[in-house]
Amino acid sequence: MPTIVVDVMPKAELLDPQGKAVSGAFARLGVEGFSQVRIGKRFELTVDGEVTDELLAEARRVAEDVLSNSVIEDVVGVEVAQ
Amino acid sequence: MPTIVVDVMPKAELLDPQGKAVSGAFARLGVEGFSQVRIGKRFELTVDGEVTDELLAEARRVAEDVLSNSVIEDVVGVEVAQ
Repeated sequence: MPTIVVDVMPKAELLDPQGKAVSGAFARLGVEGFSQVRIGKRFELTVDGEVTDELLAEARRVAEDVLSNSVIEDVVGVEVAQ
Repeated sequence: MPTIVVDVMPKAELLDPQGKAVSGAFARLGVEGFSQVRIGKRFELTVDGEVTDELLAEARRVAEDVLSNSVIEDVVGVEVAQ
């Protein structure tokens, strides 16, 4: 069944304490080459039936209105996955 | 700067209470067309410099060993984003 993937990330200007914690873990574990880690959410919406333009528009709407908090987060992707 | 995106999802056979809560919210709000919602994590690893094959291999390794818990989660993607 088709899936619509919605990606939500903390806004770039905000601190991301979870991401900072992972960066700290990388440093302690000797993992090198990554200057920053940020952690967001990935939503997989399973579609019954076909992905129509209307349904994709509805997914974009709920991504902004329900799945993310626009004060602190940005929707960075709404895409159909197979 | 290039970014490596790591996507981690709860294993398909596990319940996902957060996803269920969002499904319930969709039903209450009259959002139709989505039969299931699952919620995972999206990690953005900022790379200093170039993405080499070694660095991508290191990202795959930390995705499995540090960024996910293989008992309850699957790494579903490790990709370079622009």
